[in-house]
Amino acid sequence: MAEKVILLDLFASMFGMRARVALAAKGVEYEYREEDLRNKSQLLLESNPIHKKIPVLIHNGKPVCESLIIVEYIDEVWNHKSPLLPSDPYQRAQARFLADYIDKKLYDVGRKMWTKNGEELEAAKKEFAEILKQLESELGDKAFFGGERFGFLDVALVTYSTWFHTYEKCGGFSIGEDCPKLIEWVRRCLDIDFVSESLTDSAKVYDFALMLRKVFGIHTS
Amino acid sequence: MAEKVILLDLFASMFGMRARVALAAKGVEYEYREEDLRNKSQLLLESNPIHKKIPVLIHNGKPVCESLIIVEYIDEVWNHKSPLLPSDPYQRAQARFLADYIDKKLYDVGRKMWTKNGEELEAAKKEFAEILKQLESELGDKAFFGGERFGFLDVALVTYSTWFHTYEKCGGFSIGEDCPKLIEWVRRCLDIDFVSESLTDSAKVYDFALMLRKVFGIHTS
Repeated sequence: MAEKVILLDLFASMFGMRARVALAAKGVEYEYREEDLRNKSQLLLESNPIHKKIPVLIHNGKPVCESLIIVEYIDEVWNHKSPLLPSDPYQRAQARFLADYIDKKLYDVGRKMWTKNGEELEAAKKEFAEILKQLESELGDKAFFGGERFGFLDVALVTYSTWFHTYEKCGGFSIGEDCPKLIEWVRRCLDIDFVSESLTDSAKVYDFALMLRKVFGIHTS
Repeated sequence: MAEKVILLDLFASMFGMRARVALAAKGVEYEYREEDLRNKSQLLLESNPIHKKIPVLIHNGKPVCESLIIVEYIDEVWNHKSPLLPSDPYQRAQARFLADYIDKKLYDVGRKMWTKNGEELEAAKKEFAEILKQLESELGDKAFFGGERFGFLDVALVTYSTWFHTYEKCGGFSIGEDCPKLIEWVRRCLDIDFVSESLTDSAKVYDFALMLRKVFGIHTS
């Protein structure tokens, strides 16, 4: 049967980018459909009735939601190349734990970089630096989080790097100063064609954040 | 090598109970260690430095944290009996999605049943009923969430049933009235020895909730 794969996504979403990177790692061809989150498509509302959020991967008519679950699904279905999760159960648990940690912490605190000011911004910057340092220490001296190969946790985190420019510019700080090894890791990831080709340009993400600030009437200065 | 398995837990935790049910499903012997959350053990702080939360499964000296990740780990390591996750990638994704939905929604709204009153309580009761109805519709006419066999999603949800009595008593409502099929499903789960033997008695959970209300100085009437 010919595979039919559709991705409902938004160009600037770090969650949507995870699905793109995983699909590209596996060499899966798919139809990309950009969603307008202020006017969601009927297909999105029907495919993810519980959360009504992108990304949604629709594989032969069946929807899969939540980005980390999508990445695991892609890894399990297209298991002929580029394994993403480690094969060892303990390493799998560790990768899942840190990806979950990223999801529980990084999005909310990252969002504050371009939506808050004053004390709230300063507190968020401190927390953001602590999270990244924690992740940098998990990376250690390895090339990638799982070792020599780009894998699941790299997928989970590298898509955030497209927002680093926005965080730095709006927050007035440099991630590379605090976490130089993490920035080297980002560069190593971007040297992989299927990664760099799947990520949205940082400048476009920044323009998107500024546009959202205007739309939501957020004043940060 | 002899397996050494330790579970750091709290008797009333629906998250800790998930690990207990999964270990019991696999017939794994383990040492149960009750934690005092106001005076956490050094082992807990060292084993889960990021969240400092129970449950933690320590397998031959290596800690695994976060209850759903622990359940998947147990399923992968002790894969000789009682498979918990389905083998089909799409069904696995669905089970993971709904377990994630439970974690994102049910704990917080459940907690409001015994910590809030007035309008806040009424709003929480409405949301709680909607979540349970959603889950009941996912169950449909199946014996268990995955079909004929007790599995991953059953583990994720059945431990909440030990809190149903507390929710009902404090919230002043009956879950069975709204969701009779879900209550039938709970009974089916409790007919399984390794489930009923792993769950804390509802009356003890209720006493624990009342004790917490007192400790935190929460007045609900």
